[in-house]
Amino acid sequence: MFEFVISATSGPARTGTLTLPHGTVETPVFMPVGTQGSVRALSPNDLRSTGATLVLANTYHLHVRPGEQVVEKLGALHRFMGWDRPLLTDSGGFQVFSLEGSRRLDEDGVEFQSHVDGSRRTLTPERATEIQWVLGADIAMAFDHVVPGGADAATARDALERTLRWLERCGKRHEELRRSGGQADGGAATDRPSAGPHVRQTLWPILQGGTHLELRTEGLRRILELGSWTGLAIGGLSVGEPKAVMYDMLERLEPKLPALPRYLMGVGFPEDLVAAVERGVDLFDCVAPTRNGRNGSAFTPDGPVNIRNAEHREDPRPLDATCDCETCTTFSRGYLRHLFMAEELLGLRLLSLHNVRYLVRLAEAMRAAIRRNAFGPWAAEWRRRYLHTGTA
Amino acid sequence: MFEFVISATSGPARTGTLTLPHGTVETPVFMPVGTQGSVRALSPNDLRSTGATLVLANTYHLHVRPGEQVVEKLGALHRFMGWDRPLLTDSGGFQVFSLEGSRRLDEDGVEFQSHVDGSRRTLTPERATEIQWVLGADIAMAFDHVVPGGADAATARDALERTLRWLERCGKRHEELRRSGGQADGGAATDRPSAGPHVRQTLWPILQGGTHLELRTEGLRRILELGSWTGLAIGGLSVGEPKAVMYDMLERLEPKLPALPRYLMGVGFPEDLVAAVERGVDLFDCVAPTRNGRNGSAFTPDGPVNIRNAEHREDPRPLDATCDCETCTTFSRGYLRHLFMAEELLGLRLLSLHNVRYLVRLAEAMRAAIRRNAFGPWAAEWRRRYLHTGTA
Repeated sequence: MFEFVISATSGPARTGTLTLPHGTVETPVFMPVGTQGSVRALSPNDLRSTGATLVLANTYHLHVRPGEQVVEKLGALHRFMGWDRPLLTDSGGFQVFSLEGSRRLDEDGVEFQSHVDGSRRTLTPERATEIQWVLGADIAMAFDHVVPGGADAATARDALERTLRWLERCGKRHEELRRSGGQADGGAATDRPSAGPHVRQTLWPILQGGTHLELRTEGLRRILELGSWTGLAIGGLSVGEPKAVMYDMLERLEPKLPALPRYLMGVGFPEDLVAAVERGVDLFDCVAPTRNGRNGSAFTPDGPVNIRNAEHREDPRPLDATCDCETCTTFSRGYLRHLFMAEELLGLRLLSLHNVRYLVRLAEAMRAAIRRNAFGPWAAEWRRRYLHTGTA
Repeated sequence: MFEFVISATSGPARTGTLTLPHGTVETPVFMPVGTQGSVRALSPNDLRSTGATLVLANTYHLHVRPGEQVVEKLGALHRFMGWDRPLLTDSGGFQVFSLEGSRRLDEDGVEFQSHVDGSRRTLTPERATEIQWVLGADIAMAFDHVVPGGADAATARDALERTLRWLERCGKRHEELRRSGGQADGGAATDRPSAGPHVRQTLWPILQGGTHLELRTEGLRRILELGSWTGLAIGGLSVGEPKAVMYDMLERLEPKLPALPRYLMGVGFPEDLVAAVERGVDLFDCVAPTRNGRNGSAFTPDGPVNIRNAEHREDPRPLDATCDCETCTTFSRGYLRHLFMAEELLGLRLLSLHNVRYLVRLAEAMRAAIRRNAFGPWAAEWRRRYLHTGTA
């Protein structure tokens, strides 16, 4: 369980298989985001039809509504949202630090105001770990302190140190939960009385350090000293810094990274996925396919298409002639444009569906290129068409 | 083509098969409404999964946006909306007479303002017929003059007379289009040069007359004198009059109706379907299942359920334990409530899907009861459970 086997490489790019309690995941992989336990506008059947294998849900959102106890009573997150394949929950750290309005940070954790009802709530490393244990995703994330993209070294150092101290507390609580037999309240499991420590969930650390390589390098070393992890996330990138800075950081970090699966949080757009896989990243999540889809923007091999444009009015062609999704095999661009002009709900769903399928297919294409040990030429050709240029 | 064969009766209730160019329809049947060429929040695959066989689309809406010429260029309505089963288009009459703001009625037709861009448009019996011919549904409706539910006899008489004169003009134009080989501009069909008059579409008249039985009776007689129809619609009911008045009118009309399929326009709710089938009606359409679904209201055998109610918060049961739809076989009431509280788009779709499936199953149950010649007892039992009463 939680095994990661790399089957082929092409430079730093690699393809492999990650084994999780709810199934296996071929990497590189893109995770659609189900913020509130639903990938916006898509049903589990839709998601399965896109070939998605791993879906992310947000701990912060599910904690404030409907509350993890409600999710637990409804059979935990997989059953709650009708998704039988692997799930990952973030820790709530990113959301808490992104919240508008007042929040109070101390060594213990973060006090914040619920965006739903304004109530005061507190997340600590222990609470974030307990909530995720109750939600029951295959992968839980450590509770981290995220700083903005332009944070100076002192600020980034402070957040890194806190993130490391919090990681230790998350790891300790997670281990207690596993050893206690799975009850978040510490009680013995009644359904598996003779089982050893539960292996239904693993905890991944998050590397912070802003845009400061020396902080990232030190953070990485100390994370690896803190435990024997089954995966590693890179947080605090794609949070406002220039893209070149992110790519450069990934490139410099890559030789120092262990053989674990590497998850670049909150990324991204197609061009970011290609650039990050080229730099050795394995997992991604981003709301772009669904958010952009709801705005009428669709990924295609020739770059993004805004379906509202008048040029699509009488266009009988599919959105993406190379795509096998329900949207592209059933409907014309003209009909899709009509749905958006007429504000029909179906349009939001059809473009979201296509965009997720596009990123899943992009990951498939990258895996195939890596297996041919031809990632560089494949990426150059991909960029020539998608970005209308020969370079990236 | 356009054959209607009654296979069983149970009092005035009957079950039969209506043969149309795009397939056969078992009656009684409920038609979901795809106002703008999309049944709100549902895809064609969703609709097929509900067992829907006949879908309605609105001529007025498709005329003002995207325009029937755009629909034609995109392969006509079936291909446009990805629906390969039978379609029916209304004539636009009801919409034009329901429009807020200025409209001008004369003998020729109705001048009105588009709700989309405020432009002045005119619908006449000929134009409504031509637009529907271009859209290409299996069944087109005559352009009628609808009056409110409480209209006095003089007003209802005036509208009835106009509707009859307009019916003659609709019939004439429809016949010309059929004989011309299918081109709305009167040209010869290039794809079927040796074919006789096209049978791809039939035109149904609409009986008006308000709540005045003598007007309805006279209207019926004159409609039947005007042509050899393949079906008959009853319009101008369920437009504000008390339900008892509608039921009484149907009951009194029934013995006078010919053996044609009878379509009660704009109806309705489950209890209306049962009452109208009991009074010899065969076809129905209504936005209730999708509109109510988007408002969080679901049909169940025990009456409507508002999924937002706090009682559903931790309820692991399906919305309707007797239902086989995706919503009921996949998700708990607790999850559905969460989707509505969290304003997730998926909730709108899941309740719409269930409500359409509910009405399709209700029609199936009525057909079975009629075949057993036991509609009365079945309806009494159904009402006892749905309305929590022994009578209707």
